Amino acid sequence: MSTTNINAYGAESAIAPLQNLNITRRTPTPHDVQIEILYCGICHSDLHAVHNDWGGTVYPIVPGHEIVGRVTKVGDHVTKFKVGDLAGVGCIVDSCRECDHCHDGNEQFCDNGWTVVFNAPDRKHGGITYGGFSESIVVDENYVVHVPETLDLSSAAPILCAGITVYSPLKHWGAGEGKNIGIIGIGGLGHLAIKIAKAMGAFVTVFTTNQAKADDAKRLGADAVVLSTDAEQMKNCPKQNMILDTVSAKHDVNTYLNLLKVDGSLVMVGLPNQPLEIGAFNVVNGRKSFSGSNIGGIAETQEVLDFCAAHGITADIELITIAQINEAFTRLEKGDVHYRFVIDMASLK
Amino acid sequence: MSTTNINAYGAESAIAPLQNLNITRRTPTPHDVQIEILYCGICHSDLHAVHNDWGGTVYPIVPGHEIVGRVTKVGDHVTKFKVGDLAGVGCIVDSCRECDHCHDGNEQFCDNGWTVVFNAPDRKHGGITYGGFSESIVVDENYVVHVPETLDLSSAAPILCAGITVYSPLKHWGAGEGKNIGIIGIGGLGHLAIKIAKAMGAFVTVFTTNQAKADDAKRLGADAVVLSTDAEQMKNCPKQNMILDTVSAKHDVNTYLNLLKVDGSLVMVGLPNQPLEIGAFNVVNGRKSFSGSNIGGIAETQEVLDFCAAHGITADIELITIAQINEAFTRLEKGDVHYRFVIDMASLK
Repeated sequence: MSTTNINAYGAESAIAPLQNLNITRRTPTPHDVQIEILYCGICHSDLHAVHNDWGGTVYPIVPGHEIVGRVTKVGDHVTKFKVGDLAGVGCIVDSCRECDHCHDGNEQFCDNGWTVVFNAPDRKHGGITYGGFSESIVVDENYVVHVPETLDLSSAAPILCAGITVYSPLKHWGAGEGKNIGIIGIGGLGHLAIKIAKAMGAFVTVFTTNQAKADDAKRLGADAVVLSTDAEQMKNCPKQNMILDTVSAKHDVNTYLNLLKVDGSLVMVGLPNQPLEIGAFNVVNGRKSFSGSNIGGIAETQEVLDFCAAHGITADIELITIAQINEAFTRLEKGDVHYRFVIDMASLK
Repeated sequence: MSTTNINAYGAESAIAPLQNLNITRRTPTPHDVQIEILYCGICHSDLHAVHNDWGGTVYPIVPGHEIVGRVTKVGDHVTKFKVGDLAGVGCIVDSCRECDHCHDGNEQFCDNGWTVVFNAPDRKHGGITYGGFSESIVVDENYVVHVPETLDLSSAAPILCAGITVYSPLKHWGAGEGKNIGIIGIGGLGHLAIKIAKAMGAFVTVFTTNQAKADDAKRLGADAVVLSTDAEQMKNCPKQNMILDTVSAKHDVNTYLNLLKVDGSLVMVGLPNQPLEIGAFNVVNGRKSFSGSNIGGIAETQEVLDFCAAHGITADIELITIAQINEAFTRLEKGDVHYRFVIDMASLK
């Protein structure tokens, strides 16, 4: 297989800082699109993977899965893209393409396991995938989406993971006109959830423990903000149809189950490392659900990009250079970011 | 208000045995039906209420909420029943009748709280309600259901609580042809769930820790039985669309969440006293839900009785006399019953 050497940024071990690495990318095969990466967002999952928090990390690892760039080469059979097009790549770069879920465009549910953009065995070309902290990437066109030209490219990058991660459950659980939608936590996911749920027409209530973030929630579009540490505010809060929980630390979800209407759902998109304790009464009374959701399929990723373009939605970001990546990881670990770091990949050259 | 003294069986305190009590019932008002109680099932909730396990018990308490009897008197405005009709009363004997849920026939979700058949303040007539461990009961006709004449009356009694408790979620979550439905636990609820899910057309898999019950599950109609303590059996178990969890003790639900298909639900109808620990990953991957369900409305209670009549379904019961009630409570506490105690109320006379 013909390959090219390119610059990337990654880690050699769980405790090593990220640093410049030389990796190879395949020359585009007939269905591939080669993309020059312009911007790449930083998600908490990148940090977890680098630190091997969930196990299974293979080193060196090149993270990055919120990729926006421009097509520089296409394979002979590519029909969706041409050189010069804007393109986006998120978490999924391949899947079995044979199971019912793949046929339905729900590659995130692939029965045979979808291929993560980084640190996953490449099912077709061999080796391990490398992510978006790099100059360029080569991906089968079926796993690449179009990025609308009207979007600001740097602040659009987080839509590829944070955006789809909140859009998919908001749509699935029916956020829209006449619905009360709660959002727990205002971070990379939560701040986009506020904007998207609001654009869907829902009445958006934000729950936070942080007064400064409470003040910011209104700016982001929230109709109501509840300081979750204030028992009186929690008691007076109207019942919610759905609450999207973006918090990745252990916390009490029973309080929020009790804020749901009949048939309401508390939907986790955060991933606390420790199990959450749930009293059976809190779901039995009112036929409630504690549910979860993980990213979305390729078609839906295109949909959220188009939705965000139509509604003028992008992430609130801090644009950094690749040299600032380790400092950004340290700040991200402390939750100190408003609300997403995005790397200007021109700085890697 | 005109009243009549009748015989009942109840407890004077959380530690007192059940004994003969004299209680009063109102003379039927214009919308009331007076029912001579023929049979009354014993549910674990009766035991919890008597022992004040959930708090709030007012003594003396007369439990019993799986009531089958015959109408002996009707109020002037009663249209649904006439003297001599078979009649059933379950958990709900009144509700606000004004909220959306009451209008929709989902009295179990009443915004203003439905009135439990026993140990609840009677919102219309005052005093505290007394349940079915008694000679007779007087209930507004809107909260009384018809018991089909073709059903065996003693073994039909448990349908009024155990039956509706499993029927409602099985229907709500779409049990039927082509669906894999799991049932955890084979007790009062579980054994009826097997029969009902099977009659709905589902492929029914029963999960149990008890080999003797595993053998019995097939007799009850299960298509497959999995000994949940056998890792190999659990691993080879096909994925389920929905799993109905009837277990009221603390147990590991994550194992079962991992046996669900994409968009599958684990639905609690059991009520463990301690919270259950759930790993967020187990709902996030595959967009799964940990949900709950509590009894059903009056219309749906009628529906399950008609469904059971159409399919020849009743509970497997041990018929006892009222004098055996304390022994039955002791056995119930140990789970030693196949699968529901029902009291022959003629023994109270």
